[in-house]
Amino acid sequence: MKIQKIAIVGGTHGNEYTGPYLLNLLKKRVPPAATYSTFELNLFLSNPKAYKNNVRFVDDDLNRSFLKEDLSNYSLDSYESNRAKVINQVLGPKEQSKTDLIIDIHSTTANMGVSIILVNDNMLNLQLASYIKYNIPNVYIYYIPPETYTGKNDHPFLNSLAKYGFALELGPIPNGVVRYDILMQAYDATLACLAFIEKKNKGLDVNFEDEIEIYEHVKTVEFPLNSDGKIDAFIHENIQDMDYKPLENGVSIFEKFDGEVVVNHEDEIFFPVFINEAAYYYKNIAFSLTRKKKIKLSMNNTNVTPVV
Amino acid sequence: MKIQKIAIVGGTHGNEYTGPYLLNLLKKRVPPAATYSTFELNLFLSNPKAYKNNVRFVDDDLNRSFLKEDLSNYSLDSYESNRAKVINQVLGPKEQSKTDLIIDIHSTTANMGVSIILVNDNMLNLQLASYIKYNIPNVYIYYIPPETYTGKNDHPFLNSLAKYGFALELGPIPNGVVRYDILMQAYDATLACLAFIEKKNKGLDVNFEDEIEIYEHVKTVEFPLNSDGKIDAFIHENIQDMDYKPLENGVSIFEKFDGEVVVNHEDEIFFPVFINEAAYYYKNIAFSLTRKKKIKLSMNNTNVTPVV
Repeated sequence: MKIQKIAIVGGTHGNEYTGPYLLNLLKKRVPPAATYSTFELNLFLSNPKAYKNNVRFVDDDLNRSFLKEDLSNYSLDSYESNRAKVINQVLGPKEQSKTDLIIDIHSTTANMGVSIILVNDNMLNLQLASYIKYNIPNVYIYYIPPETYTGKNDHPFLNSLAKYGFALELGPIPNGVVRYDILMQAYDATLACLAFIEKKNKGLDVNFEDEIEIYEHVKTVEFPLNSDGKIDAFIHENIQDMDYKPLENGVSIFEKFDGEVVVNHEDEIFFPVFINEAAYYYKNIAFSLTRKKKIKLSMNNTNVTPVV
Repeated sequence: MKIQKIAIVGGTHGNEYTGPYLLNLLKKRVPPAATYSTFELNLFLSNPKAYKNNVRFVDDDLNRSFLKEDLSNYSLDSYESNRAKVINQVLGPKEQSKTDLIIDIHSTTANMGVSIILVNDNMLNLQLASYIKYNIPNVYIYYIPPETYTGKNDHPFLNSLAKYGFALELGPIPNGVVRYDILMQAYDATLACLAFIEKKNKGLDVNFEDEIEIYEHVKTVEFPLNSDGKIDAFIHENIQDMDYKPLENGVSIFEKFDGEVVVNHEDEIFFPVFINEAAYYYKNIAFSLTRKKKIKLSMNNTNVTPVV
């Protein structure tokens, strides 16, 4: 395995400004080419129209447009379904991708710190995530197995075009703004990733923890709805900002307009993420639940050994 | 003076969810009618189309559409310029308004706490603001004299339809979400306003500080732009979240993509507000500057006496 082409992608959601600003920053401040001699770096603005209009998407969510069946379905004709096919030409094609590793920069209104979202838990990805976590504070590793998300062995996310890489999800931050602190987290995590690959490509030692915690996607949870199908509650103060914290049975999760409190009834202790994410209101989604696992890593083995 | 008709307005900017959610909350939880026997309460969703679409506005900013000359200009035909004329019929008409007092609920991505934004500094408004500040934590009073904003003796804001009242600006909060803590601040400030009016109408004693600090609008400050007229910098970490804090000469205010730092060169110590507000990026506005003043209030005098 050698990583020769890397793409840093921003603006997949046009109102998440951290990505496009990071691309501008990297154009001006990326360390000299000599620092990274083993790979090519492509800085790619994925949804320029949505970015220009300061909207998540124009017609459809671009970051749900990369299922193989959709990439080969030419009857789909929205702006984003066309754009996805173009990106598949530029960075892909999916499963025979000319890009070895993609980092797709996202932001969230939820309190998710620096979340590395993996759609492929191959050993290099896990080692890379562990390395970033080892070097940057406030990092979480969130793995979305394809079956739990799409029910099939495929992912609709842009970074599923490449075998290696992840979506970098930063928050909390409003849409349509840039914050220095969040931008620097994106910058530091990206440079850590590039440093890891450069060392690996050169056969140098790379230090990381050989046991990591990952949060594995289980399911989404909807807001309570009224008889018209409209959201009839808000996130209870007890769980606001409590992303990646254990959610016990009996904890209040929603408060309805009439004052009724809704409590969590899950027997298993899950770990919520994307709590109160602005982009999911239109789908009535309040948060997602994950299961915390420990995974043992090895340097040269592609098998993943679950510890817990 | 007696206040007989009050309107609580939400959704003037459709992606600021706190207002519409407050209206829903008040419908379910407003204290019994007996509590407020001296006025009628109108709960009014001002821009339903923008709220439904989760956008600030459809065609134009509704909260800049209430200048007298625009309300009487029938050649203006955007969604919001029509909607403003309808609202002027329902809540106004401006200067002979059937609504005595309007609270227009807004939210901001800036760290502005609970800001009472006055467009009219008549004594009742100042007393009301002082009363709310006396009863609710984290309240600031921000006055926008018409001349500093429009250059004429008129305001484009919705709440300028009524002689009394204010815009309530709450933050920081992303657009398109509701937070319990912010919603409760809006609820508490609104109920404090209603309690004040009820007591005044009944001739009861009302307690408030007779000297208040107000922040008076001076001007807006733009981001540095590149040669293409695009924003070329971000808010410097030194001033992020520093709304209402004194801004000294020489303090760093922007950092450009190439690393150059831009410092503040104002000789007077102003107090910035709306720092990093998402809605102003498209106008290239980074923040506004205000001047802090103390004002002496009296119970029965409509003259305002500046102290400092």
